[in-house]
Amino acid sequence: MNYGEKSLKLHRRMRGKIEMRSKVSLTTRDDLSVAYTPGVGVVSSAIGNDKNLSWVLTNRANQVAVVSDGTAVLGLGDIGPEGAMPVMEGKAIIFKEFAGIDATPLCIDTKDVDEIVRFCKLIQPSFAGINLEDISAPRCFDILERLENELDIPVFHDDQDGTAIVVLAALLNACRVSGKTIKDLRIVVNGGGAAGFAVARLILTQKPKDLIMLDSKGIIYDGRSDMNVYKNKIAKITNKKKMQGDLSMAMNGADVFIGLSKGNLVSAEMVRSMNERPFVFAMANPTPEIMPDEAQRGGAFIVGTGRSDFPNQINNALVFPGIFRGLLDNKIKKVTEKMKIAAAYALADSIKRPRTDKILPDITEKKVVKIIARALIRKE
Amino acid sequence: MNYGEKSLKLHRRMRGKIEMRSKVSLTTRDDLSVAYTPGVGVVSSAIGNDKNLSWVLTNRANQVAVVSDGTAVLGLGDIGPEGAMPVMEGKAIIFKEFAGIDATPLCIDTKDVDEIVRFCKLIQPSFAGINLEDISAPRCFDILERLENELDIPVFHDDQDGTAIVVLAALLNACRVSGKTIKDLRIVVNGGGAAGFAVARLILTQKPKDLIMLDSKGIIYDGRSDMNVYKNKIAKITNKKKMQGDLSMAMNGADVFIGLSKGNLVSAEMVRSMNERPFVFAMANPTPEIMPDEAQRGGAFIVGTGRSDFPNQINNALVFPGIFRGLLDNKIKKVTEKMKIAAAYALADSIKRPRTDKILPDITEKKVVKIIARALIRKE
Repeated sequence: MNYGEKSLKLHRRMRGKIEMRSKVSLTTRDDLSVAYTPGVGVVSSAIGNDKNLSWVLTNRANQVAVVSDGTAVLGLGDIGPEGAMPVMEGKAIIFKEFAGIDATPLCIDTKDVDEIVRFCKLIQPSFAGINLEDISAPRCFDILERLENELDIPVFHDDQDGTAIVVLAALLNACRVSGKTIKDLRIVVNGGGAAGFAVARLILTQKPKDLIMLDSKGIIYDGRSDMNVYKNKIAKITNKKKMQGDLSMAMNGADVFIGLSKGNLVSAEMVRSMNERPFVFAMANPTPEIMPDEAQRGGAFIVGTGRSDFPNQINNALVFPGIFRGLLDNKIKKVTEKMKIAAAYALADSIKRPRTDKILPDITEKKVVKIIARALIRKE
Repeated sequence: MNYGEKSLKLHRRMRGKIEMRSKVSLTTRDDLSVAYTPGVGVVSSAIGNDKNLSWVLTNRANQVAVVSDGTAVLGLGDIGPEGAMPVMEGKAIIFKEFAGIDATPLCIDTKDVDEIVRFCKLIQPSFAGINLEDISAPRCFDILERLENELDIPVFHDDQDGTAIVVLAALLNACRVSGKTIKDLRIVVNGGGAAGFAVARLILTQKPKDLIMLDSKGIIYDGRSDMNVYKNKIAKITNKKKMQGDLSMAMNGADVFIGLSKGNLVSAEMVRSMNERPFVFAMANPTPEIMPDEAQRGGAFIVGTGRSDFPNQINNALVFPGIFRGLLDNKIKKVTEKMKIAAAYALADSIKRPRTDKILPDITEKKVVKIIARALIRKE
């Protein structure tokens, strides 16, 4: 039985993966008098008089909303808010298992930017932070930017910055293993969605030799027609030689392939056309751009995917629990670029001796959350 | 130490009362591959293709949103969404403990009717039902009516119908104990909020001799100025003699006092002015309209409050877990008047031999949920 079948069976048997639990006993009338009425009136009054008390008298300080409109779920695309829920429940249980955070999946029935922004503002009194999830580009850029300005609690778009941090960490250790340095690399980022842009922007802070970005229509270059403001902007700071063409053109002679797009786009031949000892990060989920064995047949020196069932899982699940643990514990309002870079270096440094099949810690290693949370404070 | 102090201490020590838990194991990479990616992709795809599968493959079928704007919290009034949270967490743990339902408190930062309605529509894909809570009248009437028409999942305003059901049940058993019948009773309902109207409307289906309603300005009568549409409407079907005046006037000679207003409004003397062997249901929370000992000094035959620390707790916490268990298990979309009456009779009938100090089951008696849930099906 493959993972898909096992997963369907598990979800059907358990009816999903999350539940709400009480932290207090509620068996006697006395329990009720303390946890509920009349006792609770004093607690509500106290918060009514000083809203700051909601951070210590309710679960708010440990509670994160996972908000999605279901428009960019994994590599599956716009499958709707109902379809997004299994992924959001998955995020929620990862939050709890690895960072002790109580996450509430809220899959909402709108694609309107103004409404999604307003929705997040409405729920602000109930949460300590908001994790945006699986919202398609370019709307997600507007939403994140507006929320960063308009909310009093931190907001993090995992698909953007979580992915960017974990990819940069993977790249740093791939360089260590191979003896290369980022400054000498020509990097191909395939995918014009949320993750693609964020990954490109964070890698650019490390000044690679060149970075070529592609969307579904091919290589992004300055002056290409049919591009939104975000693509026009990134075109000006990438692809120095204004290369045009498709993915096989871009990969020819490149040092790194980073796939944040769809399954089965890359062949062993395309890997073979890359520079010597190339890195192939095929991160589309659930089906990677190229399966690991095929990438190796094409001569890939280091191969990573987004999946739990292959070595080198490059997945933002390594990042978001630690980011939020750090944000919540230290009441940090905004994840800055410095924090992202620090988190990526901390994640890479957590592997003492990286190997071709071990460039990142395993998601199940619990130390990762602390390492990332601490990196945020140092760069606040 | 009183309940208020104990409650403050509990909330501070536990940081609120709820948490999110995983229903599945998540310790190995294999666990992650099944619960999360790659396995979860198949589950999300399946729901994307058939949204009905969200009822069996996620926790949705057992999940209720508890939505409040914090404008009418207990008897405390408009203390804001943050202040409402301890009460909503209390509702959530009662949902779980007594009905096994996973409730999500969502205290939101708006008082606008359109926005609250829209908010509930946005979260619909994530929940099986919506429990409105502590929203002030008359906005709550508009919100409930619109949501009943516009949502595909059931909505229940606990402060209205939950309270109405439990009060009618209490009244039925008070009649049994005293040998009176509702048709002979003159009933005073003090409180022009959500609960007052719903209680009045449900009792009117049982055709009492008369019912006098009061708001903060005094007795509601046909032709009084300064009344909203809801008060004008209820004025036409209550207060047959068009009595005018204040609460002491209304209580003079009445058989039943039902308080859904504020603490400390009723004196022993006012109880003494009532008809013989009167019922006093002083349900304001956390402070009742009159304390039980004082009501008894005034000659009350049966006394009930909303609190857990006195006999005869007349609190909607007896009702809402069973209502939602019934709605969810039987996919019922709307709570009809017949269902409300059936639930009230079932609740009253659950006490084999009612006594003056035992007209309702205890909230901690777990059979109550089943009794109410079953009553809904019979009247579907």
